[in-house]
Amino acid sequence: MADRYSFSLTTFSPSGKLVQIEYALNAVKQGVTTIGIKSANGVVLATERKANSSLLKSNTGSKVELITPNIGMSYSGMGPDFRVLVDKARKLAHTNYKRIYNEYPPVKILVQEIAKVMQESTQSGGIRPFGVSLLVGGYDEHSEQFQLYQVDPSGSYFPWKATAIGKTSNSAKTFLEKRWNENLELEDAIHVALLALKESVDGELTGDNLDIAIVSDPQDHLLGFKGTSVEGPRFKKLTAEEINDRLDSL
Amino acid sequence: MADRYSFSLTTFSPSGKLVQIEYALNAVKQGVTTIGIKSANGVVLATERKANSSLLKSNTGSKVELITPNIGMSYSGMGPDFRVLVDKARKLAHTNYKRIYNEYPPVKILVQEIAKVMQESTQSGGIRPFGVSLLVGGYDEHSEQFQLYQVDPSGSYFPWKATAIGKTSNSAKTFLEKRWNENLELEDAIHVALLALKESVDGELTGDNLDIAIVSDPQDHLLGFKGTSVEGPRFKKLTAEEINDRLDSL
Amino acid sequence: MADRYSFSLTTFSPSGKLVQIEYALNAVKQGVTTIGIKSANGVVLATERKANSSLLKSNTGSKVELITPNIGMSYSGMGPDFRVLVDKARKLAHTNYKRIYNEYPPVKILVQEIAKVMQESTQSGGIRPFGVSLLVGGYDEHSEQFQLYQVDPSGSYFPWKATAIGKTSNSAKTFLEKRWNENLELEDAIHVALLALKESVDGELTGDNLDIAIVSDPQDHLLGFKGTSVEGPRFKKLTAEEINDRLDSL
Amino acid sequence: MADRYSFSLTTFSPSGKLVQIEYALNAVKQGVTTIGIKSANGVVLATERKANSSLLKSNTGSKVELITPNIGMSYSGMGPDFRVLVDKARKLAHTNYKRIYNEYPPVKILVQEIAKVMQESTQSGGIRPFGVSLLVGGYDEHSEQFQLYQVDPSGSYFPWKATAIGKTSNSAKTFLEKRWNENLELEDAIHVALLALKESVDGELTGDNLDIAIVSDPQDHLLGFKGTSVEGPRFKKLTAEEINDRLDSL
Amino acid sequence: MADRYSFSLTTFSPSGKLVQIEYALNAVKQGVTTIGIKSANGVVLATERKANSSLLKSNTGSKVELITPNIGMSYSGMGPDFRVLVDKARKLAHTNYKRIYNEYPPVKILVQEIAKVMQESTQSGGIRPFGVSLLVGGYDEHSEQFQLYQVDPSGSYFPWKATAIGKTSNSAKTFLEKRWNENLELEDAIHVALLALKESVDGELTGDNLDIAIVSDPQDHLLGFKGTSVEGPRFKKLTAEEINDRLDSL
Amino acid sequence: MADRYSFSLTTFSPSGKLVQIEYALNAVKQGVTTIGIKSANGVVLATERKANSSLLKSNTGSKVELITPNIGMSYSGMGPDFRVLVDKARKLAHTNYKRIYNEYPPVKILVQEIAKVMQESTQSGGIRPFGVSLLVGGYDEHSEQFQLYQVDPSGSYFPWKATAIGKTSNSAKTFLEKRWNENLELEDAIHVALLALKESVDGELTGDNLDIAIVSDPQDHLLGFKGTSVEGPRFKKLTAEEINDRLDSL
Amino acid sequence: MADRYSFSLTTFSPSGKLVQIEYALNAVKQGVTTIGIKSANGVVLATERKANSSLLKSNTGSKVELITPNIGMSYSGMGPDFRVLVDKARKLAHTNYKRIYNEYPPVKILVQEIAKVMQESTQSGGIRPFGVSLLVGGYDEHSEQFQLYQVDPSGSYFPWKATAIGKTSNSAKTFLEKRWNENLELEDAIHVALLALKESVDGELTGDNLDIAIVSDPQDHLLGFKGTSVEGPRFKKLTAEEINDRLDSL
Repeated sequence: MADRYSFSLTTFSPSGKLVQIEYALNAVKQGVTTIGIKSANGVVLATERKANSSLLKSNTGSKVELITPNIGMSYSGMGPDFRVLVDKARKLAHTNYKRIYNEYPPVKILVQEIAKVMQESTQSGGIRPFGVSLLVGGYDEHSEQFQLYQVDPSGSYFPWKATAIGKTSNSAKTFLEKRWNENLELEDAIHVALLALKESVDGELTGDNLDIAIVSDPQDHLLGFKGTSVEGPRFKKLTAEEINDRLDSL
Repeated sequence: MADRYSFSLTTFSPSGKLVQIEYALNAVKQGVTTIGIKSANGVVLATERKANSSLLKSNTGSKVELITPNIGMSYSGMGPDFRVLVDKARKLAHTNYKRIYNEYPPVKILVQEIAKVMQESTQSGGIRPFGVSLLVGGYDEHSEQFQLYQVDPSGSYFPWKATAIGKTSNSAKTFLEKRWNENLELEDAIHVALLALKESVDGELTGDNLDIAIVSDPQDHLLGFKGTSVEGPRFKKLTAEEINDRLDSL
Repeated sequence: MADRYSFSLTTFSPSGKLVQIEYALNAVKQGVTTIGIKSANGVVLATERKANSSLLKSNTGSKVELITPNIGMSYSGMGPDFRVLVDKARKLAHTNYKRIYNEYPPVKILVQEIAKVMQESTQSGGIRPFGVSLLVGGYDEHSEQFQLYQVDPSGSYFPWKATAIGKTSNSAKTFLEKRWNENLELEDAIHVALLALKESVDGELTGDNLDIAIVSDPQDHLLGFKGTSVEGPRFKKLTAEEINDRLDSL
Repeated sequence: MADRYSFSLTTFSPSGKLVQIEYALNAVKQGVTTIGIKSANGVVLATERKANSSLLKSNTGSKVELITPNIGMSYSGMGPDFRVLVDKARKLAHTNYKRIYNEYPPVKILVQEIAKVMQESTQSGGIRPFGVSLLVGGYDEHSEQFQLYQVDPSGSYFPWKATAIGKTSNSAKTFLEKRWNENLELEDAIHVALLALKESVDGELTGDNLDIAIVSDPQDHLLGFKGTSVEGPRFKKLTAEEINDRLDSL
Repeated sequence: MADRYSFSLTTFSPSGKLVQIEYALNAVKQGVTTIGIKSANGVVLATERKANSSLLKSNTGSKVELITPNIGMSYSGMGPDFRVLVDKARKLAHTNYKRIYNEYPPVKILVQEIAKVMQESTQSGGIRPFGVSLLVGGYDEHSEQFQLYQVDPSGSYFPWKATAIGKTSNSAKTFLEKRWNENLELEDAIHVALLALKESVDGELTGDNLDIAIVSDPQDHLLGFKGTSVEGPRFKKLTAEEINDRLDSL
Repeated sequence: MADRYSFSLTTFSPSGKLVQIEYALNAVKQGVTTIGIKSANGVVLATERKANSSLLKSNTGSKVELITPNIGMSYSGMGPDFRVLVDKARKLAHTNYKRIYNEYPPVKILVQEIAKVMQESTQSGGIRPFGVSLLVGGYDEHSEQFQLYQVDPSGSYFPWKATAIGKTSNSAKTFLEKRWNENLELEDAIHVALLALKESVDGELTGDNLDIAIVSDPQDHLLGFKGTSVEGPRFKKLTAEEINDRLDSL
Repeated sequence: MADRYSFSLTTFSPSGKLVQIEYALNAVKQGVTTIGIKSANGVVLATERKANSSLLKSNTGSKVELITPNIGMSYSGMGPDFRVLVDKARKLAHTNYKRIYNEYPPVKILVQEIAKVMQESTQSGGIRPFGVSLLVGGYDEHSEQFQLYQVDPSGSYFPWKATAIGKTSNSAKTFLEKRWNENLELEDAIHVALLALKESVDGELTGDNLDIAIVSDPQDHLLGFKGTSVEGPRFKKLTAEEINDRLDSL
């Protein structure tokens, strides 16, 4: 960070605000709502996939992405900026961390690294801030715990039990505060996430306009081979059918 | 991306918009309309070639370009910017991907790489955004599927069954929504594309003022040699005669 | 410092002020209050951890950080900027100093190095000033003394017996002047810090919305192994329970 | 293109225009008219050489330049910018292409390379756009065809049968549309070019205030040696006498 | 100086002033007053140490610093800028000079080097001017003379018998002109310095709110070892007690 | 040219003008008049040397400079900029050309190189345009011809029989058009140049306020040695006496 | 000069002026007057040393500096800028010239090099112009002549018999024109210089507020050793006593 060629595009206003960061947050506020909920046995990340035309192909979801086999990431705000951060997060996880320690980083370490990238863009990277807030959900092998984090354009990050970002984040968070409790099972969490999204989405929820991923038990069948002692990834995207099943039971 | 010398020309407005991107979209909106349609057995990319003078030579079309033998690309907006992206796309396909994997990239991978180049120009490349939207059509060997993508100046990309970009894109998209269905054959798709363009083009459609390319079956005769097991390219530009034949049957 | 590529974003106003520094101080003034108190047998750093939602996970405090085993650091102002300075401080302590002298730097040396980083950002680093004031508390092996320093965005630093930074720093400092005396024991200091924070915090103080760390006697049990002559770290974060115990006795 | 140090001087206006390019086109519009005509057996490039003083030496024409033995280039707009592009075009033809393939580039390849240089100056070269439009005429060995291209400050290029750039380009183009046909011989083309220029030139046309070059049959006598199988250059500048002969027969 | 990457932030106003330098002088004028007096047998540098809170630790003075064993430096203006210049001055004295000549630089040489650093910041360093004026006092081995210099943000330097910089410098200089004479002994000089400061300091003078250093006879006891022929440093900071003793006898 | 670090200070005005170039031409227009005349057996360059004080030493003329033994250069406009171009021209002639071809460059080649340097300063050198127009006079060994060129701040260059630049260039050019003819001998040319200057110079012409150089026959006596087959330089500055002799015969 | 990283801070005004240079000249015009006079047997450089306080030490003159043993330099304008040019001039004289030719540069060569440095700062050094005019006086071994030059912020230089720069330069030059003649001896020149300064200095002239240096006969006694064939330096600063002696005889 802050190497000698870098410089800042973001300066303080008289009241001590960094306005480019505030404006970037407004870009986030214009994005569709994304929900993250942590439960006893897994994390769910759920968001709407805008399909304002029947001609838009629906089976190419990319709003919730796998970063490591046990960590997924979603966002509200500008899609192309999210893709840049997905690339960086994967690189940080694999090149910077896994190559050294021969294991994937814990969720918090990864979140701190991503947050550092986002902070740099507000002080020294010579670039505009990123126009996204992120939700990062994952599982830590060592602590055997599920984790859910939010990262903002300023580079601030927060650990959550459940939260929402984007257009209707305020009302969604109020809803989540009422519905979340320590005993929530993963299926309950998905249920709550769908209810929370229902408020913000115009029109009907379907498997085609939702992107939902979970981090829960190892999905050995996703490994593509058998008979080994290697655990499958815990990150798994729900198919349109799996989402529709849950929507039917709302 | 985002190496240490780069910086952004594009900053957030108070409402969270990146105005240079909005203005670049306006440049796209001033471009002639380009149509892309995916059918069961192929993709068609069709656009108008402005020939506002009888002295402009007609047989030198370059508004739909081959990127790999199975992927073609067209655009609306600024021609010289398109040429830069054609160069980059070819380089990405050959140098970055084919040299490593010894096969051409799938359509989505290529689209993501191009989208990344366009996103960079909005955050860290130190240059203005590209003044074009792209349509990328192709065929994936592995999935054995045809693909059609749109990439915008922001670096956003969308998978489509059929779409239009440029001056009359809104009305053309409405038209395509009415006419497109899952059973469309490639020839039907070309037919629909011609009808959609007819609306936007001033004056008569002819083989001389249209640029049409298809990605469909391997065109072994385009290989230039015989008796091998190598498949020919699937990308093929229609000649003026081939276009005129279709126009006659409209 | 001041290598040949660097340049300043901060210039003098006609009255001789560096306005970006004044604005950065306003960013600090908007931060939550942080208290530092030096006593005969230890230093305490205490601050509020904002938890404006019941869904924010509470056990992930990071507002007071260990820099070396004997030095801790807290802040008022912008969290992501603090994290950058924590990284730099750790690097300065370990790479620049410990690698050369095979011991951790004395508190004042470390503070001077951090202050230099912050001064650079106001004259030559090409970046905006840091939006934080820091409190650095620690213990010097050689002088066998506890130390407490404040570092401001300008790079100014001050040695304190007790002080406060952030939103209610003025009233808190007045309170501390009344309550501090040379005979204060560490437990008294924690008591005074809690009382000082009480004024500034909206709502009840609990172990969940406070971050408190002490630098006092070596905590050999924190070493994770036994039977050696190595001393444990003197820096120790209080658990929520330990904080609640003290709150009960207020 | 777009290396990491580059940046753009040219940004989008709200309506999606790149104003520096529009202004550069205005610089072209202030230049003297240049005519290019392709005929069955050759291309002619003709322009006025301003000689507003009898003291200006006339035999040092440089407004139509040889790029390769078979390709010539003329312009409207700023002379010094043209000279830079002549240098670059020659370098591209020889160093980049001939050194690799051991033959001169086809006209279209060369035109694309020049166009790329001009596009760069509008997006990433950190410099103002070039203040010239170019006419490039040449002969392709492989296709055995004559070619005529126009390149604009934006980097757009167009294949023409006949065209005009500069001050009176609009009226000259109208004139050319009337006079051009497929059966034109080179001598006819020169005749038409002289007529087209007559309109735009103040005062009488003479061999002294015109610069005319043709690309037609190999001019073996220009080789400077005999008895070899090497073909002479096809590019040939007309002498003042040769021009006057044609003017006499107008 | 003036290497090829550097550039100036400071340009001439129409009247030929460099305004950033004038503004930097205003920053100096806002600083507390610092007094320097040269006497027959030593130099004294004296300044106020602001302690606007009883909680500020008093025994950590750093407003008069040793640069070489025989040269000390104080300032008025911005503390963090002073620290940067202290670092540079020490480096210049040791690395640039002592490493070459195996002795410390004479006072004037050192002053010229510091002045050059400050001039650069006004023309070519790409940074704002330094917001301090310096007083440099020292003893030259070769000439066997005491020296006192002032250096201003512009890089101007002046040799003084006695002078004052900072808030009340004008009145203090008038006072010094009246009291200074060639026969002043060091103790008299300290006495005069305290009287001069008395005017500018709000509240009572004490050993706790004053920083005083002298350069006089070698202080062999400061060497930390005995029985050698090495001379001790001539620079010596007065303790609070030593200051109080002098204050009592005012 | 146009290396990757360069950028332009000169952008287009809406009407397609490069205003910095226009302003530089105004700087030329404020310079004293300089006359260049080509005759059958030589070129003369003549200009006024301002001596607005009797104390200015007169025998140190430098307004007409030798570039190669056969080429001289004068100017109107800013003297220090001329000196830079003299240095560059000499370097171009010797290092770039003579080192490669073992002979001095022909006049036109040298003029093109200087013009390129001046064009760069208007597009990519990152510097302001040069504030001078140049007159370059010389003799080409190969063509056995005398040459006279003008180069403008834009990098445009023109071959002349006779011309004038600077304050009274318009009237001087009208005068030259009347007086110049093909049969002019060098001595006539000097005579005409003196008459042309007479108009523009305030006060009397003398050998002391004129700078005149000729390029004509080889001046073997200027070689400084004898008995070799080396030809002397053709460039020769007239002494004050030689000028006065000609003035007497006006 | 003009390496690829450099750029200009100084652009043309519409009337063709470089305003930063004009402003720098205003800085010179605010400086104290400096006189230079060339006589048959030597050059004198004389200027006022401001001593607006009795406490300013007087024996540390530095406004006339030795550059080589036979060349001295003084200035009007900004002292710190002068010091930078002194450093550069010495370096140019020793490193660039003496190391190559094993003798010191002639006055004119040195002046041209300094002028080049000053021109660069107006076109390509990326820095503001220097805020000084220089007077350079010296003796050339080869021509056996004394020389006096003025160099201005623009990089213009002029050879003088006698001249003045700074606040009262206009009236002083008028005075010098009346008093200077070819038969002036060095002592007369000093006499005239003192008379010229008398006008501009407020208050009495004394050896303490004047800086005078002469370049005349070799001062072998300044060599510091005897019995060699080496000539002593011709540059010699007058002591306060030597100045007072001349003042007495005014």
